[in-house]
Amino acid sequence: MKLITFDGGRVGRLELEEGTVIELDVPSTREYFERGGDVRETGERLAYADVKLEAPIRPKKFFHTAGNFADHHNELTAVDWSHPVHKGIVFFQNVDAIIGPDDDIVYPEGLTKELDYELELGIIIGKPGKFFGPDEADDYIAGFTVFNDITARDIQRKEMESGVFSFSKGIDTFCPIGPWIVTRDEVPDMHELPMQLRVNGEVRQQGNTNQTRIKFPHLVAYHSPQIYSAGDIITTGTISGVAAVQPNPFDFYLQPGDEIEAEITGIGTLRNRVISWEDRYGEPAPARVDW
Amino acid sequence: MKLITFDGGRVGRLELEEGTVIELDVPSTREYFERGGDVRETGERLAYADVKLEAPIRPKKFFHTAGNFADHHNELTAVDWSHPVHKGIVFFQNVDAIIGPDDDIVYPEGLTKELDYELELGIIIGKPGKFFGPDEADDYIAGFTVFNDITARDIQRKEMESGVFSFSKGIDTFCPIGPWIVTRDEVPDMHELPMQLRVNGEVRQQGNTNQTRIKFPHLVAYHSPQIYSAGDIITTGTISGVAAVQPNPFDFYLQPGDEIEAEITGIGTLRNRVISWEDRYGEPAPARVDW
Repeated sequence: MKLITFDGGRVGRLELEEGTVIELDVPSTREYFERGGDVRETGERLAYADVKLEAPIRPKKFFHTAGNFADHHNELTAVDWSHPVHKGIVFFQNVDAIIGPDDDIVYPEGLTKELDYELELGIIIGKPGKFFGPDEADDYIAGFTVFNDITARDIQRKEMESGVFSFSKGIDTFCPIGPWIVTRDEVPDMHELPMQLRVNGEVRQQGNTNQTRIKFPHLVAYHSPQIYSAGDIITTGTISGVAAVQPNPFDFYLQPGDEIEAEITGIGTLRNRVISWEDRYGEPAPARVDW
Repeated sequence: MKLITFDGGRVGRLELEEGTVIELDVPSTREYFERGGDVRETGERLAYADVKLEAPIRPKKFFHTAGNFADHHNELTAVDWSHPVHKGIVFFQNVDAIIGPDDDIVYPEGLTKELDYELELGIIIGKPGKFFGPDEADDYIAGFTVFNDITARDIQRKEMESGVFSFSKGIDTFCPIGPWIVTRDEVPDMHELPMQLRVNGEVRQQGNTNQTRIKFPHLVAYHSPQIYSAGDIITTGTISGVAAVQPNPFDFYLQPGDEIEAEITGIGTLRNRVISWEDRYGEPAPARVDW
């Protein structure tokens, strides 16, 4: 099933080939998972062309993991990235920075000059749990979505001098997810999903979930001492090709006007444009508060 | 006002001297702030002695800041801590790891041998906002609570090799807050609050919010590009005296049976015991999932 959020928080099942949305009687997709999917239809059907998709879920927690794809690890090593990219990296993404498909990423020109992209597969956790092993973990994986990890690299480098980062990836609008959640039953092999990110149609990142250093159920178990709630997202790492590792990164960093397509075959394509602060707010971007 | 959560999520105002709880007609303290405090009493009054306090709030986001107190910065520098402690450190705390006053911290012996404490003042954000300056920030500060930042130092050191940490502070039960929220009007000067943390009655940390490198409204403004929701918590850094910086840290790390009192004069005392995994679950702690 393709589970969507649309038109101000309504929940539906998308029948993409028929172009139909079947509304579900539940206040949020998070609650859909809290109820174990035991949800009825409202009886209302809408044309897909008439609805506005929103971020498919507003999770309680958004585990952001990193370092799982060998080639991204290798490309960072090659450019002398400030820190080794060990296994098991995790931090919490800002749930208030989430935007949905076709929502705009607002460029905060007062904060950064190095706006980067990172395509990741997001796993939706289906039920609460903690401290479980890899053997039990498969049951927790209920669905998938696409995540584009927008990052201000100049801020991230500065943050990492203190051994932690978050601000650089948590700025308003930096967390696009979508276009929908594909439930587990529709994904024959989660470790065999081609991934491609394009900027203005040009391929920037290309990979496949078969390149991961750890299988996803194992990853989910590894982080389980931090507790899962139903509907939580855990991401699975990005692939090679981010702007920061290019020999000429400033030719690759995102600019206002750019359109990003983050695609995972079998899951979906998440499209977002970058717009300037002035285009959104009609005034120049504020300078960073400093001290 | 002392705003409390008690007995399975009920909300009340505590009249400490009278020993009375006046129940408020709102489903959560987070919603209390979402409604701007426009909340009526239910009419029910209870004896304080008869209620069980819980974590005073379940915030949408929990901003954890660090490096604000000069003396904690200096003590880390003195022991050659792996990274400099720059201004502006922030990351998101695990909202599912929150426990309340008198709840137990469960020692995960399979994960860590270096369990540390860190006393911090938590600010409760009263209204949503983003990208605002220090001049506007004062209006966002609606209340205060005490936070004891429980940390597995061995895990943290390993995480920081990759330039980020979270797991070490986000394990189940590692996030005690409370005992209540003291609203802003009851705090004459938030930059003049004595702080003291005791383990089994022995003073371990001692300081005062007057030692901060940045004033709290400025700190709140600094992080505002990450967006605030009403009821969010932002912490303000810890003071000197954590176990990890002692010449003999293993004499100071927490052990099952320890009782921690985290006190901020004018706010309250947050008391929690450390218990073994076996005492909680009746079996030995699981080993860490590895790969």
